[in-house]
Amino acid sequence: MTRRIGILTGGGDAPGLNAVIRAFVKTAKLRWDWRILGVEDSFNGLFSEPRRVHELDLVSCKGLLHRGGTFLGTTNRGDPFAFPQPDGSKRDITADLVAGFVELGLEGLVVIGGDGTQAIGLRLMRERGIPVVGVPKTIDNDLSATDYTFGFQSAVEVATEALDRLHTTAESHDRVMFLEVMGRDAGHIALSAGIAGGADIILLPEVPWDPERVAAKIRGRQSIGRPFSIVVVAEGALPVGCPTDLDERRKRLKSGGGAAAIAMANIEGRVDAEMRSTVLGHLQRGGSPVAFDRVLATRFGVAAADLVAEHRWGEMVRLSNGHVTSVPIEEAIATYRLVDIDGELVRTARATGIELGG
Amino acid sequence: MTRRIGILTGGGDAPGLNAVIRAFVKTAKLRWDWRILGVEDSFNGLFSEPRRVHELDLVSCKGLLHRGGTFLGTTNRGDPFAFPQPDGSKRDITADLVAGFVELGLEGLVVIGGDGTQAIGLRLMRERGIPVVGVPKTIDNDLSATDYTFGFQSAVEVATEALDRLHTTAESHDRVMFLEVMGRDAGHIALSAGIAGGADIILLPEVPWDPERVAAKIRGRQSIGRPFSIVVVAEGALPVGCPTDLDERRKRLKSGGGAAAIAMANIEGRVDAEMRSTVLGHLQRGGSPVAFDRVLATRFGVAAADLVAEHRWGEMVRLSNGHVTSVPIEEAIATYRLVDIDGELVRTARATGIELGG
Amino acid sequence: MTRRIGILTGGGDAPGLNAVIRAFVKTAKLRWDWRILGVEDSFNGLFSEPRRVHELDLVSCKGLLHRGGTFLGTTNRGDPFAFPQPDGSKRDITADLVAGFVELGLEGLVVIGGDGTQAIGLRLMRERGIPVVGVPKTIDNDLSATDYTFGFQSAVEVATEALDRLHTTAESHDRVMFLEVMGRDAGHIALSAGIAGGADIILLPEVPWDPERVAAKIRGRQSIGRPFSIVVVAEGALPVGCPTDLDERRKRLKSGGGAAAIAMANIEGRVDAEMRSTVLGHLQRGGSPVAFDRVLATRFGVAAADLVAEHRWGEMVRLSNGHVTSVPIEEAIATYRLVDIDGELVRTARATGIELGG
Amino acid sequence: MTRRIGILTGGGDAPGLNAVIRAFVKTAKLRWDWRILGVEDSFNGLFSEPRRVHELDLVSCKGLLHRGGTFLGTTNRGDPFAFPQPDGSKRDITADLVAGFVELGLEGLVVIGGDGTQAIGLRLMRERGIPVVGVPKTIDNDLSATDYTFGFQSAVEVATEALDRLHTTAESHDRVMFLEVMGRDAGHIALSAGIAGGADIILLPEVPWDPERVAAKIRGRQSIGRPFSIVVVAEGALPVGCPTDLDERRKRLKSGGGAAAIAMANIEGRVDAEMRSTVLGHLQRGGSPVAFDRVLATRFGVAAADLVAEHRWGEMVRLSNGHVTSVPIEEAIATYRLVDIDGELVRTARATGIELGG
Repeated sequence: MTRRIGILTGGGDAPGLNAVIRAFVKTAKLRWDWRILGVEDSFNGLFSEPRRVHELDLVSCKGLLHRGGTFLGTTNRGDPFAFPQPDGSKRDITADLVAGFVELGLEGLVVIGGDGTQAIGLRLMRERGIPVVGVPKTIDNDLSATDYTFGFQSAVEVATEALDRLHTTAESHDRVMFLEVMGRDAGHIALSAGIAGGADIILLPEVPWDPERVAAKIRGRQSIGRPFSIVVVAEGALPVGCPTDLDERRKRLKSGGGAAAIAMANIEGRVDAEMRSTVLGHLQRGGSPVAFDRVLATRFGVAAADLVAEHRWGEMVRLSNGHVTSVPIEEAIATYRLVDIDGELVRTARATGIELGG
Repeated sequence: MTRRIGILTGGGDAPGLNAVIRAFVKTAKLRWDWRILGVEDSFNGLFSEPRRVHELDLVSCKGLLHRGGTFLGTTNRGDPFAFPQPDGSKRDITADLVAGFVELGLEGLVVIGGDGTQAIGLRLMRERGIPVVGVPKTIDNDLSATDYTFGFQSAVEVATEALDRLHTTAESHDRVMFLEVMGRDAGHIALSAGIAGGADIILLPEVPWDPERVAAKIRGRQSIGRPFSIVVVAEGALPVGCPTDLDERRKRLKSGGGAAAIAMANIEGRVDAEMRSTVLGHLQRGGSPVAFDRVLATRFGVAAADLVAEHRWGEMVRLSNGHVTSVPIEEAIATYRLVDIDGELVRTARATGIELGG
Repeated sequence: MTRRIGILTGGGDAPGLNAVIRAFVKTAKLRWDWRILGVEDSFNGLFSEPRRVHELDLVSCKGLLHRGGTFLGTTNRGDPFAFPQPDGSKRDITADLVAGFVELGLEGLVVIGGDGTQAIGLRLMRERGIPVVGVPKTIDNDLSATDYTFGFQSAVEVATEALDRLHTTAESHDRVMFLEVMGRDAGHIALSAGIAGGADIILLPEVPWDPERVAAKIRGRQSIGRPFSIVVVAEGALPVGCPTDLDERRKRLKSGGGAAAIAMANIEGRVDAEMRSTVLGHLQRGGSPVAFDRVLATRFGVAAADLVAEHRWGEMVRLSNGHVTSVPIEEAIATYRLVDIDGELVRTARATGIELGG
Repeated sequence: MTRRIGILTGGGDAPGLNAVIRAFVKTAKLRWDWRILGVEDSFNGLFSEPRRVHELDLVSCKGLLHRGGTFLGTTNRGDPFAFPQPDGSKRDITADLVAGFVELGLEGLVVIGGDGTQAIGLRLMRERGIPVVGVPKTIDNDLSATDYTFGFQSAVEVATEALDRLHTTAESHDRVMFLEVMGRDAGHIALSAGIAGGADIILLPEVPWDPERVAAKIRGRQSIGRPFSIVVVAEGALPVGCPTDLDERRKRLKSGGGAAAIAMANIEGRVDAEMRSTVLGHLQRGGSPVAFDRVLATRFGVAAADLVAEHRWGEMVRLSNGHVTSVPIEEAIATYRLVDIDGELVRTARATGIELGG
């Protein structure tokens, strides 16, 4: 009998989502001719009434490779184990989800998403008997189970192009320009884009930064005829003395108007220079993926089909030392990879004169 | 005797400044072998002690064409007729400027800059006897004397690429995405980028917009299966009922956190959708100019050399019906071009279903 | 009764075709709710059995704005007045075309295409009674009836980016690099891209070029420490002494392996330098249009709908002094615009030191 | 005493060369304040009279990061062990090179280059006593000693963008489009760009391809309503039956007009479709590096300085399982990495329906 497999995307946008779906569908159809159902809006398409799923075939894949976003949608209305109700309460609606899964004749789900989405998938497998295969997605590249996630290089490229643009203006106006990039807990985007874009200073969530050291770097440049400076700020970077607790940090960032605003406020009094800040925001998440991410996403999509073919439910694809292999989802979502502040990339930044403020 | 001409850039950054300087220098050297002095930081290099000028030759022009910003710098320390002093007072320092001009043996100045810079140039000519030729620069393209200014198309391209990126995320998440682009008084960038980027709504400084009409457009899209919308907001756009006086408008924009934030706040209560906003800011001003701007800037630079060759001081180059000609500076800076809300481009926007809110 | 209008695209690809279709359909539906039929592959969809047409509505327009090419297709199987038969003969099949037109209940056609396609459209109107409205398309921008055609700026941008890339390699290797760009009869792309990309030499179809002058320019650069040079060659550029008759020129270009190869062969013996050539070819025609072309294409699409609304059959939209107006098709296709070798743009090129070889 | 180290770049252009030099100089100056001499045009600057070297400092590094090519030049006039003489003979001129090395007070050389350049460096160390440290450079990414070389991802990105452009035209015209990309012996660029750009067929040097299989793929697409196809051809790909000897292959490629022309000629008779080919050529080598390559080049430059600091002469930096380490040059240049035709990337291509023709 023809196997019927569902596929869905959850969580924030990342360039390459469509490329994963395309590769999975192409492999599944061309090799085994399975029936593939695309589930709309994360798990929502399974439990909503009516169900919101599309049958996907080779024609559905047309034009997907270079298209950003996910054509399945990823609007998150909440965890099905605690789904928000109109009255403000939360309810376990997984029975509806399981009903949808059965009704559609599905055998398993391919779940493309971040740790939150994967955790739900894993729980659905363990507690509700829905077999899942995982494909990791985090634009921050902060999952230690995989060398790279798709979307990360695209975000770094966008941030680097932004730095190239800011450079000319900073130089023309003798300004200190701050660019806030993604990275609430892990500063990988800031670090790579900062190196690639020739930043003078990079502020990371992993390094509580000392305003005086940062100011000294700017003044040092002024004193040698470089009156402008470029500061890359990860969205979770905070100065020394700020809380280490994540919730407290979030609050501090919010109340201060974001990491770049906080950085600017802390440095303004210490340096005589005009300052400007730009928040790159959503521009990092959308748009066409770079070639690197298209290839990686395609590899992940093919590998996910292989896992399904071999009934290796509960596993997640990943890139390990350049090879796509798999790992138990449970293991994968347990450990994050922060920037290693004693690692080679940080050393590279410091060696080329970039100040990290700590 | 060899003529000695100064050239300077004033005001905000715009892609193409370097290309104007390059074309002027190349023409001046190759045709007439004048000596050209590049004045640093607008008029500042003339009156500062020591003078800050470079002799420019063909070698100085290497690699300038595609480089954003201005290698002469444009840091504005103030109007030389009322120059800020350390004690907070203002002083007329044009005598120092004239002294520098004479000392350097200059015959005239090519002034590349916006209306503020041009007004100072004109006053220096009339009141202090310094001959000037003008090259218009306004990234907002709001000078009625010229069809186009360089930098405008580059800014529109950057904003359009940003809209392409936001589209995929908006669609994946069913969001309403606001993008704030440049245009404090004139909405040309917002209008062109909005049409080019497929915006659903464009808010212009020239059109006091009705929140209810905007909200109705978003809801209308939701009702036909398009749960996302893209809103382009010029940085000077305000809803109906806001002041018409420019200073008052500036205050309102500042207190509200900017045009996009004000727009979002006015619409949030009227529509059931997630909303996000991005402020494009300085990314529109820096970086390599598009081909259109490189060609236009080169034409302006050559034409400025022609004006100097013909001793047509007091004139400014401009593009008129596709041809580069000139116009008295006085005339040129007197009249702004706002978006013509009955014009063809606005009509084009409306015809293709774009809502302007008024 | 609802009007039924057909729309088709003919001839070579140009960035912006889809944007014209989109703007026409949006305007036609939103304003007047006409029924629009998209005809596949130029006029072919009308006379083929079965007819190949799609009904176009707002949903059909989704994602078209930034997509290169034409989703209607433009595969040219031949002039319906002399359509190639399997036996090699040609036959007038316009009766089939008229039959298709009547059968589909069409009132008129919007014809997006170059002079060949427009001439067929005009003849169909005059001799077969099929009302047409024209939208000009020539990536070479060589129609004197319109200031600009869509696609031209996109091609110039692609060629300029290619020149930026070649520059760094030419400089690293002390090479003379030739880049062949589009322009069989008119050299507008070569001229604009050459100026924008900092070419040292531009060879145009309009200027029979003297190999010795070109070689002297390269040697002159070598003698002042610039051992590399960049040469932009329009695909129709030929050296002095070559035929002026168009057919003879085509033969000469073909036998010589193209304009860049001919240029390289003529210069190699005169200069001591490594030389390389690149033919940009189809890369100039495809891909996403730049913002300028998206706006222009949208304006043309809206204006075409206006012409249909006003029953102004036989007219073609065009850009004239910055405004979109219309002109009789007959008039429009009669006169080409070559590069004006005494015009301002050529003068700009020469003033900045670019050698045209004649 | 201050150490004096030379640095040079040899062989073909690759995006990232300048970034390596910059990172090396920055590290050397900031950490240890060595004196760095940039040697012009590979080893040539050492033995030419007068010597051609520049002292490099932090100011020399300005603006280098995003600039393609190498500002030291890389014009190859020949192997110093067998240097071409005006009379056509070859002469060992390494005594002049050693004299230059000694005269300049150098202690060692950092050699950035491909296997040819590295082999010369190694021989200079062994036979002439000049200490060298190597930085690998091959845009083809075909060195087994390192996971990635800088420049490769930039070339893949350029090729992928070209494929995006060709797609729209192919589709509009129902054409088969061939794109020839770099890769004489190893098809890594073709394989990655083909996957990223959604190619239907990829022809590699490693896979003698069967014209009938390729034609069948194109006809198969035509039969399911996809009348266009995209074929990526590595410059060293040849059909079955062609010689395996490298020199013979070179001759065959040359006589046939290149790999894409040969491919087109072999397929034309078997398929009823219009065909066109484009040779990407030098566009892949020049221009600004992508962020990935800027980071990698910076890491290599810093690591090269570390090797010099530790007197680890005879070693070459490389990327191994994501970490920058080093390896003896001798070992590094001995083994090439071809595309593994049983490897995961080829499997990924096949799984998504890409035909390799063998």
